[in-house]
Amino acid sequence: MATQYTPAQLRSEIRSGEYIKNTSGLCAGFVQCNVAILPKAWADDFLQFCQLNPKPCPIVAMAAAPGDTALPVIAPDFDIRSDVPKYRIWRDGLLAEEVTDISHVWRDDLVTFLLGCSFSFEEALVADGLEIRNISEQKNVPMYNTNIACEAAGRFSSNMVVSMRPFTPKDAIRMIQICSRFPSVHGAPVHFGDPAAIGIKDINTPDYGDAVTIKAGEVPVFTACGVTPQAAIMQAKPQFCITHSPGHMVVSDIPNSKLAIF
Amino acid sequence: MATQYTPAQLRSEIRSGEYIKNTSGLCAGFVQCNVAILPKAWADDFLQFCQLNPKPCPIVAMAAAPGDTALPVIAPDFDIRSDVPKYRIWRDGLLAEEVTDISHVWRDDLVTFLLGCSFSFEEALVADGLEIRNISEQKNVPMYNTNIACEAAGRFSSNMVVSMRPFTPKDAIRMIQICSRFPSVHGAPVHFGDPAAIGIKDINTPDYGDAVTIKAGEVPVFTACGVTPQAAIMQAKPQFCITHSPGHMVVSDIPNSKLAIF
Repeated sequence: MATQYTPAQLRSEIRSGEYIKNTSGLCAGFVQCNVAILPKAWADDFLQFCQLNPKPCPIVAMAAAPGDTALPVIAPDFDIRSDVPKYRIWRDGLLAEEVTDISHVWRDDLVTFLLGCSFSFEEALVADGLEIRNISEQKNVPMYNTNIACEAAGRFSSNMVVSMRPFTPKDAIRMIQICSRFPSVHGAPVHFGDPAAIGIKDINTPDYGDAVTIKAGEVPVFTACGVTPQAAIMQAKPQFCITHSPGHMVVSDIPNSKLAIF
Repeated sequence: MATQYTPAQLRSEIRSGEYIKNTSGLCAGFVQCNVAILPKAWADDFLQFCQLNPKPCPIVAMAAAPGDTALPVIAPDFDIRSDVPKYRIWRDGLLAEEVTDISHVWRDDLVTFLLGCSFSFEEALVADGLEIRNISEQKNVPMYNTNIACEAAGRFSSNMVVSMRPFTPKDAIRMIQICSRFPSVHGAPVHFGDPAAIGIKDINTPDYGDAVTIKAGEVPVFTACGVTPQAAIMQAKPQFCITHSPGHMVVSDIPNSKLAIF
């Protein structure tokens, strides 16, 4: 069972093409990352966009130079061309193909960004005894476009996309404490309560993912979401870029606890 | 002006009887404390009550032994008999007299407890740029009895009393982060949003203090309050006890920043 794998074992199966499914719930305790790979001509603007908007776009790792395929901070032998279970190749802002290896399209000008993902803070919340509704209902977390403008950088701009998890106020306070420890996986929420206050018209109709139950006495808690940088990329329409396929993440050797700032 | 005083200068005027007013806003940057002085026969239960309910009853300092009038952690020369601007003496749960010195009623069996006060975390919130409504409207913070039961200890039991400050959700999240750093001055809030969920019938009619404006888009945020231990004492009705007069606190040499756990 892949669930019992170490990150190195899982990456080995991913690299050989044996494992091509999503990585949700695998290698518990280790950081998983969103992937964005951009030509150098776009990478500087994208880096600035991430730096200006650290909550939706927290950079966990970045290739040292254009063309670099190694990211030793992720794993000693990591290779971005083969170690993601499924990639999406985008041309002029449109999805061109979905592949399990990108060696054939690799270029010397490509810059790799790995961004934090909610799996890390969800694990910390579950470990603390909090119920995560999208986990208990076995759904994708509901995500929404908002009216919260990100800081623009060059050709990149976007409103923030947020994920939503319902909690009682007491649990929401604990959730805020725990998530505050993890700024590199979106950190503290950006809003709670009234969805309309951040431009969400219908909480039961998410723009991405699935709706989840909000019980009486619970409030929706909204967290900056890693879909934001993808939305910014889709809006900027670079001639060429590569992302991971949703849920098919980089699995690193970094323990989740290493992301905790205190 | 007393506002410019160091804690030592202010305590000197308090000890001599020159200063007998409330200490709100004085000696910015230094911890102020609520006072509870109980006979040893009641002090053990009270200590246990505080230990079981650290959010409403955070012990900042406790006399080393019954009869001790010094509390060196507060100040090298501190004397609990003279260094509080105004005391309340209670007999059988009823207010007997209000005095500016308790030397005449001091007993060898009295145990002094100094408990954290919201002034410390309010200062940290203001320093961060948050608006505290009770400060901007120059009112006493509104406080409410709730249906949140404290853990009972011997003869002491009480529901929690909470203070309320309204914030936008965004500011409430920041407030939760900042207050979480200060567990010895009530720490993170215990509730936000619906007052009825914690047994508050009318948010505009506080049980203690003054009502404050809650603007559109704001939510009430409820924090455990230092009135709780006084409520527990009034309910237990010890034959004899001494508290400070509301707002007339112990002013210590401890910088507020020393209470921050990270």
